[in-house]
Amino acid sequence: MAFRFFPKSFNFFDLFEKQVSHAVEAACLFKEIVADGGVSEDASSRMTAIEHQGDEVAHKIIDQLNKTFITPFDREDIHALASQLDDITDMINNILNRLRVYNITVVDKNLVEFSGIIDQSVRAVSRAIGGLRNHKDGQVVFEACVEINRLENVGDAMRDHALSELFASARDPISVIKWKDIYQEAETVLDVCEDVAHVVDSIMVKQA
Amino acid sequence: MAFRFFPKSFNFFDLFEKQVSHAVEAACLFKEIVADGGVSEDASSRMTAIEHQGDEVAHKIIDQLNKTFITPFDREDIHALASQLDDITDMINNILNRLRVYNITVVDKNLVEFSGIIDQSVRAVSRAIGGLRNHKDGQVVFEACVEINRLENVGDAMRDHALSELFASARDPISVIKWKDIYQEAETVLDVCEDVAHVVDSIMVKQA
Amino acid sequence: MAFRFFPKSFNFFDLFEKQVSHAVEAACLFKEIVADGGVSEDASSRMTAIEHQGDEVAHKIIDQLNKTFITPFDREDIHALASQLDDITDMINNILNRLRVYNITVVDKNLVEFSGIIDQSVRAVSRAIGGLRNHKDGQVVFEACVEINRLENVGDAMRDHALSELFASARDPISVIKWKDIYQEAETVLDVCEDVAHVVDSIMVKQA
Repeated sequence: MAFRFFPKSFNFFDLFEKQVSHAVEAACLFKEIVADGGVSEDASSRMTAIEHQGDEVAHKIIDQLNKTFITPFDREDIHALASQLDDITDMINNILNRLRVYNITVVDKNLVEFSGIIDQSVRAVSRAIGGLRNHKDGQVVFEACVEINRLENVGDAMRDHALSELFASARDPISVIKWKDIYQEAETVLDVCEDVAHVVDSIMVKQA
Repeated sequence: MAFRFFPKSFNFFDLFEKQVSHAVEAACLFKEIVADGGVSEDASSRMTAIEHQGDEVAHKIIDQLNKTFITPFDREDIHALASQLDDITDMINNILNRLRVYNITVVDKNLVEFSGIIDQSVRAVSRAIGGLRNHKDGQVVFEACVEINRLENVGDAMRDHALSELFASARDPISVIKWKDIYQEAETVLDVCEDVAHVVDSIMVKQA
Repeated sequence: MAFRFFPKSFNFFDLFEKQVSHAVEAACLFKEIVADGGVSEDASSRMTAIEHQGDEVAHKIIDQLNKTFITPFDREDIHALASQLDDITDMINNILNRLRVYNITVVDKNLVEFSGIIDQSVRAVSRAIGGLRNHKDGQVVFEACVEINRLENVGDAMRDHALSELFASARDPISVIKWKDIYQEAETVLDVCEDVAHVVDSIMVKQA
């Protein structure tokens, strides 16, 4: 797949790589926290810091977009990527927040599995975004997008399995309310990664 | 209402009609399943097949859009239609999935009513989409959109009634959680049909 | 911050000011209702009337947008504003609807607080929208947007606090289901106000 030449003067690629690096950090920290079995004060404030850094980069991208006349790819694709990459970090932070608000001190094996899949998917998002810059990385981008789609399907099945188990075994309705929410939010992170893959895919097709 | 001439060489109309036919199939199968009182393995895999076919058409439309310079109507309207028509089929499949995950073996009369309204609304969506191609079908499209809006209001009232009943009578909180979810998803299908009507309406106004 | 001249003949500004005035009315009525401790038939039909008026203005804006070739700012920003301002009124109406459907006759102090914050945020949205028309109101718009963002953060903390309290103290799962829904919808109104602030901010940057 051949690419048009992108003027080097634009730093959209730098900004997107920075933004996705915050998403990778968030997914990685989330995996650690879940492996540790619960949310500490320290972990929680580290996540908040990552989320703020991600927010800042998103604002920079939108700001630069609004001030730039010629962009390396379609304006609406830049806008979509900036907001979706932001959503990934926000949503991971949201799950953590739910664990705190619901006072969940023991994390179950389903969430541990989810955190691993989310981590893999966000890393694939990072490869896809990284590949956008380079003219020759069509294959890398393509494989990353296939992987993201695969992991979204894995996540769907995982959520269904987790919900089936939850509803089949649960005695305590309050606990069902809490975990149903958490599993669904975990799956939504994978949906947003898939949205990114769709936008990246569109950019590649248009550049071809 | 007069239309500009659309070049015959574009097959966006064929693709949209194909995509909406999968939504009609999904709505029809859903009505059958609900009338039968529960989800069989067979019905469930037929729905999955319909959903995959719908997905494929959506991808074809986006792909063609990305490769096409001149489109019969605004690019963002084509994008919105493709993704909303896809959502209709996805969401109907989701409800089925919920029935399975929640292990609901007896369907209530409210869901039977919902399935009828969804079927009617998706058929109206099909008429609206079909009318886009023909220069003289302004009236058909207009009437279909009015019908879709009417059914969305019917659906709102139906969901409120179903939820009132559920909360007023329910003894079992787990069952409340399940049915609240299902009624809301059923109503959301009608919301997405209304979104399609809005886009179709916009296309008509711009072509006038 | 300097502005380009906007042709006086377009009445998008009038329409947006009209639409936001309905949102302000809705937020104000909601605050009254919640202060009164519950939803009366009369209050409920007043809210429905406001929501319909808001809907009508939204349709007028989209219709005018579809028929207008040159717009005072980007078409997609006009579209986003019209639909987000509509969402504010819709969502406030939705909360009222939930109170009725869930047969909630006694409103808690958290919702009273929320209604106050929503009222403040929608008033800031009104100032931001009002400032769009005037070339010299950059500072007013900027301050209104900062205020909206601040109130969204306040709302997040308020929802977390309300949910923590709800889950920590609740004996009755059905009541948890109801109030969790209501707090989340209340917070979502503030999210939509923040979305408006983002669009307004983008418009200002592009006009600068």
